[in-house]
Amino acid sequence: MKVVIRAGGVGTRLWPLSRQSKPKQFHAFAGGRTLIQEAYDRVGKFYPSDDIYVSAPESIAGMVREQLPSVPAENLILEPARRDTAAAIGLETAIIARKDPRAVIASLGSDHVIRDADRFINLLKAAETAIETMPDYLFALGVKPTRPETGFGYIETDQVLMKANGEPVYRVTRFTEKPDLESAEGYVRSGHFLWNSNMFIWRADTLLNLFRKFEPEMMSGLREIQSALGSPQGADVLRRVYPTLKRVAVDYAIIEKTDKMAVIPADMGWADIGSWSAIHEVAEPDARGNIAHGREIILDTSNSTIFSNSGRLVAVLGMKDVVVVDTGDTVLVCSKQSCQDVKKLTDALSADGELKRFAE
Amino acid sequence: MKVVIRAGGVGTRLWPLSRQSKPKQFHAFAGGRTLIQEAYDRVGKFYPSDDIYVSAPESIAGMVREQLPSVPAENLILEPARRDTAAAIGLETAIIARKDPRAVIASLGSDHVIRDADRFINLLKAAETAIETMPDYLFALGVKPTRPETGFGYIETDQVLMKANGEPVYRVTRFTEKPDLESAEGYVRSGHFLWNSNMFIWRADTLLNLFRKFEPEMMSGLREIQSALGSPQGADVLRRVYPTLKRVAVDYAIIEKTDKMAVIPADMGWADIGSWSAIHEVAEPDARGNIAHGREIILDTSNSTIFSNSGRLVAVLGMKDVVVVDTGDTVLVCSKQSCQDVKKLTDALSADGELKRFAE
Repeated sequence: MKVVIRAGGVGTRLWPLSRQSKPKQFHAFAGGRTLIQEAYDRVGKFYPSDDIYVSAPESIAGMVREQLPSVPAENLILEPARRDTAAAIGLETAIIARKDPRAVIASLGSDHVIRDADRFINLLKAAETAIETMPDYLFALGVKPTRPETGFGYIETDQVLMKANGEPVYRVTRFTEKPDLESAEGYVRSGHFLWNSNMFIWRADTLLNLFRKFEPEMMSGLREIQSALGSPQGADVLRRVYPTLKRVAVDYAIIEKTDKMAVIPADMGWADIGSWSAIHEVAEPDARGNIAHGREIILDTSNSTIFSNSGRLVAVLGMKDVVVVDTGDTVLVCSKQSCQDVKKLTDALSADGELKRFAE
Repeated sequence: MKVVIRAGGVGTRLWPLSRQSKPKQFHAFAGGRTLIQEAYDRVGKFYPSDDIYVSAPESIAGMVREQLPSVPAENLILEPARRDTAAAIGLETAIIARKDPRAVIASLGSDHVIRDADRFINLLKAAETAIETMPDYLFALGVKPTRPETGFGYIETDQVLMKANGEPVYRVTRFTEKPDLESAEGYVRSGHFLWNSNMFIWRADTLLNLFRKFEPEMMSGLREIQSALGSPQGADVLRRVYPTLKRVAVDYAIIEKTDKMAVIPADMGWADIGSWSAIHEVAEPDARGNIAHGREIILDTSNSTIFSNSGRLVAVLGMKDVVVVDTGDTVLVCSKQSCQDVKKLTDALSADGELKRFAE
């Protein structure tokens, strides 16, 4: 099995820490390792480094090399532009398929927390086993929802198709992106839905066949890049063609459209630090419900999150349910309730000539 | 008349902007001039610079010279240590009395706002006129209270003693420091109380006589300093004796004890920026009640104060009644209600070996 760690996410809701120039997966939220280093460590313990790829926009290649020095140069897949996940996953698949069209690929997000790494690896192996029997299926790892979260994708399950290494493999009847609250509540109540963990397993040829079927134009671009790979023109073709690929998420472009989708329930301690209010997923609150990272003094304050990586002092007095983030050039103060709306700030900044740089 | 601008206050409740190394009067809260520059400008328009003195702890002499370049070197009264207002006022009085024991001195705080400078000067002149008739009285300018503020001193008035330049001069029956809320409410209701504006007018010999009467030990120290002034040993004596003077406020030591105290009601737009919640005294809130100074973006937020002088961006989202202060090395986030308790933070910092420097 080949493993691809996708490093291209931006994590806009973790602004101002997470920036295009240094997205959230390149930050440490607890302990010393960054999320992407943890993502690499998890698979690096079980797979040889030759089989682990990292895909990232070219603009952050330096940071990837710095944080993940074990990745062989030829396993670093660099995208000349940001074109969303369909193009990124298409590219990684085309590159791996060139050497081995029937390769099984685990395509993994890098901006999540997985507390039980052993369990995670066992689930990847179960998916690999299942693919031997069902090579034309796409597999996802699905997480049992614990709350009606509206920021995640949901996967509706049907009957069990098979057991692989003892793990039940469910047929997927529906894949839905970020639902409204009412729908999310219904999903959680029904017991038939799992969260999309953003961890996929599939055969390279299976996925490329689906690109051909549902996104023929993208496929012809990917094919052009693939043919030129390794030739003297390879880099030029990539640089010319990749930026023309459709900007769409792989979920919309491919996954929601196929009827051969399977999911394995994954009780692996998965958590998404989707926004500042979710930081308790990685850090233990103190007796008053506060989470602090950095140099702080906190008095008469409860249920608050204070994160500083600037070396400056953050002093918080008489607050409740607040998030304070202090980075090199920006301080964010927001109520926990409004954490999800951080994009309002970056949108407003982007529209401002002078302040634009703080959004990027 | 000689004018002394006292620059020795610390303004602890405006931490982290106001620090021992740069107290609040050396900061600008609105517009480009600092509070002490405004204090100097107010009197500098009407009095020659030879008659305007500035008193300050030696440790901040450089900052005084930088912000007030018009002050003649010999008019800068430097205290070798911080010994509270009785010692500071005793020293300035002893120095001025050496040349002219009967000099009238206006001893003025530098950390207040006075919007009507012309009116202020007229009130100083009225006090000067009154002193011709009542040379053994101490005079204060008193501000009509608009709220039961517990952070100010109150002056209880009795009958009108005289009119000076048309201004009524009241006899003072009581001088009380920071009352509790109930007392403050009673004072405001009664209509017989004025706030102590921290602006005093008296004759040098009158004040020194009261030192002799109520603080004989301080007086003997002051006398020793005074005698040595101008001699080669002057600086040494000051440096040796001043730090031994009692650490007490002039209000407690002298003013509350004399029965010859007068006050002139001063409708001069006086305001004290005592804490961050009082910043609206110098800055106009916007339609949502927010006050912003610096580089900010503020969304879905009301009744909040954001002050930054660091050049960094402060982003505030979904907050109410909050104060955010961003200085070079510290960020403070506190509820408006708890602004008065900023000292809790500096006390805790002072007790911490590593964080101590952030309190100073």
